[in-house]
Amino acid sequence: MERMDQGMPFLLQYENVAWYESGRVRILDRRVYPREVRFEVCETYQEVVRAIADMVTQSAGPYTAVGMGMALAAHQVRGKGRAEQAAFLRQAAHDLAHARPTTANRYGKITFRCAAIAEAALEAGRDPIAAIVDDTLESLGRRYSTMQLVGNHLAALIPEGGTLLTQCYGETIIGTLIRAARRTGRDFRVFCAETRPFLQGARLTASCFAQAGFDTTVLTDNMIAYAMEREGIDLFTSAADTIARDGHIANKTGTFQIAILAKYFGVPYYVTGIPDGDKRSAAEIVIEQRDPEPVLTSWGIPNTVPEVRGIYPSFDVTPPHLISGVVTDKGVYVPYLLDRYFETNVQEFY
Amino acid sequence: MERMDQGMPFLLQYENVAWYESGRVRILDRRVYPREVRFEVCETYQEVVRAIADMVTQSAGPYTAVGMGMALAAHQVRGKGRAEQAAFLRQAAHDLAHARPTTANRYGKITFRCAAIAEAALEAGRDPIAAIVDDTLESLGRRYSTMQLVGNHLAALIPEGGTLLTQCYGETIIGTLIRAARRTGRDFRVFCAETRPFLQGARLTASCFAQAGFDTTVLTDNMIAYAMEREGIDLFTSAADTIARDGHIANKTGTFQIAILAKYFGVPYYVTGIPDGDKRSAAEIVIEQRDPEPVLTSWGIPNTVPEVRGIYPSFDVTPPHLISGVVTDKGVYVPYLLDRYFETNVQEFY
Repeated sequence: MERMDQGMPFLLQYENVAWYESGRVRILDRRVYPREVRFEVCETYQEVVRAIADMVTQSAGPYTAVGMGMALAAHQVRGKGRAEQAAFLRQAAHDLAHARPTTANRYGKITFRCAAIAEAALEAGRDPIAAIVDDTLESLGRRYSTMQLVGNHLAALIPEGGTLLTQCYGETIIGTLIRAARRTGRDFRVFCAETRPFLQGARLTASCFAQAGFDTTVLTDNMIAYAMEREGIDLFTSAADTIARDGHIANKTGTFQIAILAKYFGVPYYVTGIPDGDKRSAAEIVIEQRDPEPVLTSWGIPNTVPEVRGIYPSFDVTPPHLISGVVTDKGVYVPYLLDRYFETNVQEFY
Repeated sequence: MERMDQGMPFLLQYENVAWYESGRVRILDRRVYPREVRFEVCETYQEVVRAIADMVTQSAGPYTAVGMGMALAAHQVRGKGRAEQAAFLRQAAHDLAHARPTTANRYGKITFRCAAIAEAALEAGRDPIAAIVDDTLESLGRRYSTMQLVGNHLAALIPEGGTLLTQCYGETIIGTLIRAARRTGRDFRVFCAETRPFLQGARLTASCFAQAGFDTTVLTDNMIAYAMEREGIDLFTSAADTIARDGHIANKTGTFQIAILAKYFGVPYYVTGIPDGDKRSAAEIVIEQRDPEPVLTSWGIPNTVPEVRGIYPSFDVTPPHLISGVVTDKGVYVPYLLDRYFETNVQEFY
């Protein structure tokens, strides 16, 4: 399978996402990039769970990290009896899937498949670790291939020379959008909401687009209305951590309010991604509540006095009436009609 | 005149705003508070202009600082001929007024009055410095007295045990609201938008309310819709750097979008302050554009790669259709009917 990361910015190189080698998983620490290029080295799958929970990696990073974590689990339990190995791998599959609650369904598709692949390899007397790593890379390649179709559809929605507003960091769609734009010779400006408290917009999205040669501007999260009124935003786009079949989507906190502002200003909002066939409605979306410490600090430095409290909902939920279209591999869907996505051939994605 | 700062949090103590003594003006550096308690010491009025332009002090702080700066100007030119002193003071009045463009009209009311008072004192053989300091303190007391009426009207709009959302830092209204609540034994929760890039909401507003004993929570600027939907916000309130007679107001960037979100969720938005009789419409509001460096950094640490640009509009403009009421010393006005404010006795305020 063609590697889709060639010529891409640093963050989009496969080896810089999460990588298994010789009993270790190396994960780029996205909490400090680009200020610092630092890799977290995990020697157990439990450390991978912790790294994902602590947001060492995020966006699509965990999809690769949980696969590599399963390889690490297979390494941890190597040489044990076959039943013990199988039980350990199933436990690892469960733990890695639940590293973050909002996306447990998606991570689980990868981890339980890895467990099954490892068991089959053991059964056949093959190396389960190599089998898991192969599947993880294949799965990564498959997501990029499918997302390239999404990226092509999104690129077609951006007017030549127009201005795109983004929220947070959706690495696969950024990579495939950059490829689509390069292939067709299109150019556009990118405005990135900085996305406090982790600043994924400023640190990750803006870095990728700028390194790929696009005119890129960062806005604080409270400048969206100003920019929509006075800077000429043509469309708002975001990825989603969940796309329920009733058209509600969960994405990084702040997406919901940008969608409201987009509606107010008549700016179209396109969500990108593959609908979650197993989530029927908003009621099935669990919003992860995190330790509020990052909300009360910047780069670890306190922003206020100790008596002040914080809240830190990791995601918010945007209803379909604020979404102009859901851009999938099969084209752009009306958010109320996502069931139609599942009426035709659905490719395995995770 | 009664001192209104007794028993108030640190930031609201008069001496901690801006203070003239023995040829120096001492200004609390609000850019680093509460992380650090540091005072900027100015030995010329030009340094006071620079301190205001650099946001060493902001909100109502400059109203005191420009007066104290005029005292410093009188100190700088002491012993010179009367005509030279008068010319120097008029130049200082102009320069201090224009330290920030959006509020030049307001600062100018203070500085040109100080220049006139100094000239009259010189004429009468009295000390111009003492005359200016006296007038500056009187003006500060007058603003607090008038704003206490605003604070009383605002307090009456907050349901007992309810939740208030604030943006940025409006020191005089915070002080008078705290007084009003104490006097009437009312309690409420405060949610503060952190107000990037300078974090006045987290650093200043939240510190004041928490130190005054209120249950205080900081939100990143992208959590407003989430909080309005799920945390029960009863009303949104902000001060304003300009209230034009047609009902458009300018306040710290982000106010506009919170007002849009408030409208979406049916949360009332009350602006506090004294309408600007000399600004007829939005067309007369100048939005200050600042160096984008703070947008690209947090506590001076870069958030992104050097190729990325930023914008930093200091204010945005909220139209009257998003404002539920303008809370003044004379009561709550419909934003479209602010001319009525000027139909009855208008007190000198600045």
